[in-house]
Amino acid sequence: MRLLLINPNMTESMTRSMTDVARVTAGPAAEIVPLTATTGFPYISSRAEAQIAGAGVLETIASHRHDVDAVIIAAFGDPGLVAARELFDLPIVGMAEAAVMSAAMLGERFSVVTFSPHMARWYDACVRQTGLGGRFTGVRCPADPPAQLGDVQTALRPELIALAHDGTRSDGADVVILGGAPLAGLAPQIAHETPGILVDPIAAATAQAMALARLSPSYRNRTARPAAKTSTGLGQALSTVIAGETT
Amino acid sequence: MRLLLINPNMTESMTRSMTDVARVTAGPAAEIVPLTATTGFPYISSRAEAQIAGAGVLETIASHRHDVDAVIIAAFGDPGLVAARELFDLPIVGMAEAAVMSAAMLGERFSVVTFSPHMARWYDACVRQTGLGGRFTGVRCPADPPAQLGDVQTALRPELIALAHDGTRSDGADVVILGGAPLAGLAPQIAHETPGILVDPIAAATAQAMALARLSPSYRNRTARPAAKTSTGLGQALSTVIAGETT
Amino acid sequence: MRLLLINPNMTESMTRSMTDVARVTAGPAAEIVPLTATTGFPYISSRAEAQIAGAGVLETIASHRHDVDAVIIAAFGDPGLVAARELFDLPIVGMAEAAVMSAAMLGERFSVVTFSPHMARWYDACVRQTGLGGRFTGVRCPADPPAQLGDVQTALRPELIALAHDGTRSDGADVVILGGAPLAGLAPQIAHETPGILVDPIAAATAQAMALARLSPSYRNRTARPAAKTSTGLGQALSTVIAGETT
Amino acid sequence: MRLLLINPNMTESMTRSMTDVARVTAGPAAEIVPLTATTGFPYISSRAEAQIAGAGVLETIASHRHDVDAVIIAAFGDPGLVAARELFDLPIVGMAEAAVMSAAMLGERFSVVTFSPHMARWYDACVRQTGLGGRFTGVRCPADPPAQLGDVQTALRPELIALAHDGTRSDGADVVILGGAPLAGLAPQIAHETPGILVDPIAAATAQAMALARLSPSYRNRTARPAAKTSTGLGQALSTVIAGETT
Amino acid sequence: MRLLLINPNMTESMTRSMTDVARVTAGPAAEIVPLTATTGFPYISSRAEAQIAGAGVLETIASHRHDVDAVIIAAFGDPGLVAARELFDLPIVGMAEAAVMSAAMLGERFSVVTFSPHMARWYDACVRQTGLGGRFTGVRCPADPPAQLGDVQTALRPELIALAHDGTRSDGADVVILGGAPLAGLAPQIAHETPGILVDPIAAATAQAMALARLSPSYRNRTARPAAKTSTGLGQALSTVIAGETT
Amino acid sequence: MRLLLINPNMTESMTRSMTDVARVTAGPAAEIVPLTATTGFPYISSRAEAQIAGAGVLETIASHRHDVDAVIIAAFGDPGLVAARELFDLPIVGMAEAAVMSAAMLGERFSVVTFSPHMARWYDACVRQTGLGGRFTGVRCPADPPAQLGDVQTALRPELIALAHDGTRSDGADVVILGGAPLAGLAPQIAHETPGILVDPIAAATAQAMALARLSPSYRNRTARPAAKTSTGLGQALSTVIAGETT
Repeated sequence: MRLLLINPNMTESMTRSMTDVARVTAGPAAEIVPLTATTGFPYISSRAEAQIAGAGVLETIASHRHDVDAVIIAAFGDPGLVAARELFDLPIVGMAEAAVMSAAMLGERFSVVTFSPHMARWYDACVRQTGLGGRFTGVRCPADPPAQLGDVQTALRPELIALAHDGTRSDGADVVILGGAPLAGLAPQIAHETPGILVDPIAAATAQAMALARLSPSYRNRTARPAAKTSTGLGQALSTVIAGETT
Repeated sequence: MRLLLINPNMTESMTRSMTDVARVTAGPAAEIVPLTATTGFPYISSRAEAQIAGAGVLETIASHRHDVDAVIIAAFGDPGLVAARELFDLPIVGMAEAAVMSAAMLGERFSVVTFSPHMARWYDACVRQTGLGGRFTGVRCPADPPAQLGDVQTALRPELIALAHDGTRSDGADVVILGGAPLAGLAPQIAHETPGILVDPIAAATAQAMALARLSPSYRNRTARPAAKTSTGLGQALSTVIAGETT
Repeated sequence: MRLLLINPNMTESMTRSMTDVARVTAGPAAEIVPLTATTGFPYISSRAEAQIAGAGVLETIASHRHDVDAVIIAAFGDPGLVAARELFDLPIVGMAEAAVMSAAMLGERFSVVTFSPHMARWYDACVRQTGLGGRFTGVRCPADPPAQLGDVQTALRPELIALAHDGTRSDGADVVILGGAPLAGLAPQIAHETPGILVDPIAAATAQAMALARLSPSYRNRTARPAAKTSTGLGQALSTVIAGETT
Repeated sequence: MRLLLINPNMTESMTRSMTDVARVTAGPAAEIVPLTATTGFPYISSRAEAQIAGAGVLETIASHRHDVDAVIIAAFGDPGLVAARELFDLPIVGMAEAAVMSAAMLGERFSVVTFSPHMARWYDACVRQTGLGGRFTGVRCPADPPAQLGDVQTALRPELIALAHDGTRSDGADVVILGGAPLAGLAPQIAHETPGILVDPIAAATAQAMALARLSPSYRNRTARPAAKTSTGLGQALSTVIAGETT
Repeated sequence: MRLLLINPNMTESMTRSMTDVARVTAGPAAEIVPLTATTGFPYISSRAEAQIAGAGVLETIASHRHDVDAVIIAAFGDPGLVAARELFDLPIVGMAEAAVMSAAMLGERFSVVTFSPHMARWYDACVRQTGLGGRFTGVRCPADPPAQLGDVQTALRPELIALAHDGTRSDGADVVILGGAPLAGLAPQIAHETPGILVDPIAAATAQAMALARLSPSYRNRTARPAAKTSTGLGQALSTVIAGETT
Repeated sequence: MRLLLINPNMTESMTRSMTDVARVTAGPAAEIVPLTATTGFPYISSRAEAQIAGAGVLETIASHRHDVDAVIIAAFGDPGLVAARELFDLPIVGMAEAAVMSAAMLGERFSVVTFSPHMARWYDACVRQTGLGGRFTGVRCPADPPAQLGDVQTALRPELIALAHDGTRSDGADVVILGGAPLAGLAPQIAHETPGILVDPIAAATAQAMALARLSPSYRNRTARPAAKTSTGLGQALSTVIAGETT
C-alpha cells in the first residue's frame, strides 16, 4: 500500500518529521511518499492561506493519484480536503479530521492543544467542520506565539503539558489531540507526564488512510462527483480530472 | 460609494446581467465596478472549483481594494468569502450569505430555488455555513440539469415557479431565494405568479454591501487579521497584503 | 425613503439620541420618523415588559404603516418583531436582529457588550432567537446595574472598553455589538481604543431597514399572513389590519 | 389545591370543555378556577394575536395570583408563558409545554396533530421553543381549515386519526399530542382506534400544574425576577407586581 | 395509586431516605412501594455500572409491573430508563429526567449541583440525553470526592450552597437540581440560604410519576414496543415480557 | 495484532459470516478471535435487549482483555460500547460507530440501509449517539420485517439496492452503510449495481480496530476511568476490573 503524504506548507523539515511519524505508524504495511509544497507559505495559519494552499493540494493529488492508494493532507487545518474528496476517486484524509475521528473512538470528548494562539481560530473551525463539535471541548494554546517554530517541542514542553491538564481537568476532555505539524512525534515522548489519551494527528492520519484503503471502497457509482467542466489556467493533470477525462 | 462586483465565473454575459441588477438596486447611491474572472471555469458548481476560483478572488480583491468601499463576490456559493473577510480591511459580502441574511429579516424560514441539481449540494452547504441552517427549508431544483445556462429564465420559468410552490407550501418557507447567477433579475418578473417573498441574491448582495459600507466599520483594531507572512507564487498585490505591508 | 423609528420605551431622550444616530447613518437617502411609546415603561428590560410593550408596537405600526417604507423597532430586545413581521406587509427590523445580521457579515463571531446585568438574560435570548446563536460568544456586562441610565456612555466608558476586550480576547469574538438604547452613538467615539469591529445597533437597524426597502420585496403573495379575524379591545388601526381589511 | 385555568381566547364554550377535562384529570385533588379572556380574539392563531393576548394573560394572573396554587395558560401556543414565569412567584404551565414535557416522559419522539393548517406554524414554533425540538417529529394537520371550530371533534375525527397514523408510521413518533383547545377531551374517545400514545394538552397541563404545586418550590431567592419598575397604562394589579410591591 | 420506587443501588439507607421524600411529596394521594437492588453496586457512578444495574432494573419492573400504576427509577443517572420505557406498558420515570422536565417548567435554564466529581460525567450525559441540553448550564460539583456518602448533607452543606451560587450567578441558571440519591431531602432545608429555585429529584420523580399516571395513557396501540423474542438466561418475569406473552 | 470479535447475539452463523469479512479485511496483519454470546437473544433489536446484552459484553471483555490488542463489538447498535470504553484500557470499537466514522471520511453525508423496520429506531438512535447526526440522512428499510434472517442477502437484494437509491438520490447521501450483522459481506457483491460508496460495518470495525491499535494509545493517565468499587453478582473477571485490581 502506498500513501501520498502532501505537506501543503513549504517547510521541508516539517515534511521530514511528519514522514518519520507516518513511517513508524505504518510499519512495513505501507510505503509513505512525501511531497512538500513548492508555492504558498512556510506555514499555513489562516483561511486565506488555506484557500490558496488548498488549490495547490488539488494540483498535487491530480498529478499523483494513479501512483498511490490513499492521500494524506498533512496540515492540521485540512486545506483542500472537502474539495479533494469531492473530486477524486480514492481515499483522502486530513490530519485534523483523522485525529478527530480517531479521538472520538478512543474517548467521549476531545480537546486540541496547540503551540500558538494564531492557530486557534482556524483549528477550531476545522474541528467543527467535521460535524463532531458536540464532543469537542475547544482549543487550548499558549497566550503568545512562539519565537520560532523549529523548537516548540522542547521550548514549550512544560506549557503544552499544562494545557493538556486544562483540556482534561477543566474542560472535561478524555482525549487530547496535539494539533499542528510542529508537534508531530511529541505525543509518545510526553504521554507519561500528560493526563488523558494523547493523539498525534499525523499518526492518526496515517492509520486512517490505511483503514480506508483497507476497505477498498468502490468509487465506480459515486454520486458526489462534479459534472465535467472545461477550465483555464490550471495544471494539466488537474484540468484533465475536472474535464472528466479518465486518463 | 463604489462597489467592486467580482464574478468568479469566466462568463461575461453573467457579469453583465448581474451588474444590471446591481445598478437597479443601488440607483444613484453607489457605483458598480464589475470584473470577470480570467482564469478558472465558465461556471463554478463544486467545492473543487470554488477552492480554485476562491484563490483568484483573493488576488482580485488585493489588486482593487483601495479603489472601492465594499466588495461583492458575485457567485451564489460565495467562493473565497471566509478567507477574504479574514484578510482584508473592508466590507465583503457574498451572494448566498447576503441573500440568506436578508431573507431572515423578511420572513421566518427561507428556501433556495435553483436551476440545476448540480448546484444543490454546494448551495446547501454554503447556506448552512452562514449559521442560519435552522431557518432554512432546503434547496429545491429540477430533477435534471438544463441543456444550456443562457436561457434558463425563460426555459425553466414554469418549473421554477412550481419549485417555489414546493418550497413554500410543502417545506414551509416564507421567503424564496432564487439562487445562482443565471437567475439574476428574474425575481421581479415572476413575483406576481409566485408564492412567498422572492429574494434576488445579487440585489441582496448589493443592498447588503451598501448597508455595511454605510456603517463605516472601523477595521483599525481588528482582531481576526492573520499574522504577517512571506509567500511564494502569489500575485504582487496579494503577496503584499499577506506580508502585512500597508501600501 | 421614509423609515418609522419606534422607541417602545417611554423615554424621549433615548428616542432623540437614537434618531440622531439613525440620521447620520441614513444621510440624505432616508427620512427618519421617530415615535416614542406613550404607555408601558421608561426602559424595557424583561420578557414581561416586552410582552406588553410589543403589543403597543403593533398598534403603532398599524397606525403608520401607509406613511413609511420600512419600520425600525428601536429597542435591543426587538419587542413585537416576530409578531409584526407576520402581520404587516412592509419591511420591519429590530435593533438586535439587525445588529446580529450585520455583525455576521463583518466577522465570524460576535459578542454583545451592554451596560447592566439586568439586560443580559433578555438580550441573550433575543440574539439566540435570530438563529445565529452558533456564532454568538455571549453577553458581557458590568457586575452591577448603573446608578442611572442617562450617563452610562461617560460613566461606564472604561468598563465598556474592558468588556469589549473580554468579548474579543477571552471569548473569541471578531465583532462587538454595543447593545441597548443608552449606548446609541458610542461606537465611533471609542472605536480607536476598543478591540474588534464595533457595531451600533441603531445604525445597523437603519442600514438594514434601508437595505430591505431597497430590495422592494413583493408582499402580494405572502404565505405567512395570518387568517383574517375579529377582535375586541384593540385600537382601530390594528383591529382593521387583523380583520384583513385593506384600507 | 386551587388551579387558575385562564383561557386567553374569548370563546366561553372552549373554556367549558377544557374545564371539564381539567376536572376529570384533577379529580378531588384540585379545584379548577376557570376564566375566559374578555378582550382579544375568539381564537388565537398567530404570533400577533399571541403578543396581544399574552399581555392580557399577565393582567389576569396579577389579579388572581394570591388565590391559587398554580396557573394553567389554556391555549396550545402558550401566550404569555415565558413572560409570566419570569414575573410571578408561583408555578405557571402552558398547554403546549406541559404536553411536550409529558410526551417526552411517555415515549421517545412525539408528534402534534391539529385541526387546521392555520395553527401549524405557531404550534411548531411553540414546541421548538421548549428546547425539545430534537424529539419532535413535526405538526400534522389537514390541508384546509375547518368550516367551523365548534364541531371539529366529530367532523374531522377520521382525518385526525389518519394524521396520527402519519405522525407515528411515517414520522416515527411514539406519542401523539392532540393540539388545540377545540380538541380538548377527544383523546380517550379515539385512543382505541389511534396508533401511539395520545396526550390531551389540557389534561397534561392540569397534571403538570399539580405536579409543580406538589413540589412546593421556594421562590424566595429566585434570581430570574426582573428589577422593579414604574409603568403607565397597565391594570392596577399588574402595575403593582411590576413595581415590585408585595401587596 | 401505587408507585414502585426502585433503588438500583444496593444501599438500603438511601432507599429509606428517598422513600421518606417520596411519601412527603405524594401525601395520601399515592402509596410508595420501595425496593432495593440485591445485586450490583453500593452506589452507581459510571456507565459500566449503569449498564449492569439497568439490566437489573428491567428484571425488577417485569416482576412487579402488575402491582403498580407507575415506576420510579430512583438513581439520578436513570439506569435502564430508555430500555424500560420501550419495553413496558406503564409510566416509568427516572430521577434525572423528571428533575430536568420539572426544572424546565419552573424556570428557563437549570443547573445540576452534586456532591462528587465522580458523578459529573455521567450526570452531564444523562441530562443531555433528555434532549434539553440547550437549557442546561452544566454540573457543578466539589473538586474532590467526599470521604463517605452517608453524611454529605451535613459535611458538604456550605459547599453545596456555594456551588448553587456558581450555578445561578456565574452560569445563569434559574433552577438548581440537587442531583444524586445522597442529597434526597436536602432541598427544603437549605432553600432559604440558596439562590434560585431548588428541585429535589426524588420529589420531582414522585410528582411526575403521579402526573403521568393521572393522564391514564392508553398503551394499547403503542408503536414503540419491540417485537416478541426468545431469550436465554433472563429471569422468568422479564423473559415472559420479552417473549410478548400477556400473563 | 489480535482482535477480539464479540458477537453479542447468540447466533453462531452470524459470528461466522462476520468473522469471514473481518479476516478478509485484516489480511495477515491481524488475527481475529471470534466469540458468540451464550446468554441473551438470537438477535438484538431493541434497547431493552441491548441493555441486557451490553452487560454480557462487559463480562466478555473483562475475561479476554489481556489476550488481545483491541475489541470489536460486532452488532450494529454497539451494545455496551460506551460503558466498555469507559471501563477498559484498550481500544474498543462498535460496528455502527466504526461504520459512521469511516463513512464520514469517505463522503460528506451517509445513509444507513438495513433489512427490517424493527431495527430502524435503534439504529437511528445509535448513529446519532456518535455525534455525527448532522451528516446522517437517516435509516432506509423495507416496510415489513423479513420472514427469516438467514437469507436476507439474497431475498432482499433488489430491495436493498432500491433503498440505497433512495438514500443517495432522494436523501442526498454519498455513502451508504449496510447496517446489521445479517448483511455482513454483501457490500462488494452489490457495489457495481448500487449508487454511492458502500460501507460494510464489520469491515469498517475491523479496519478501525486496527487503526486504533496501530496508534498505540497510552491509557496510563486516562482520566475517564471510574473510581474502584465493590460489586455483587458479577463474574469474577469483571468484578476484578471494577474493583480496580490490576491482575
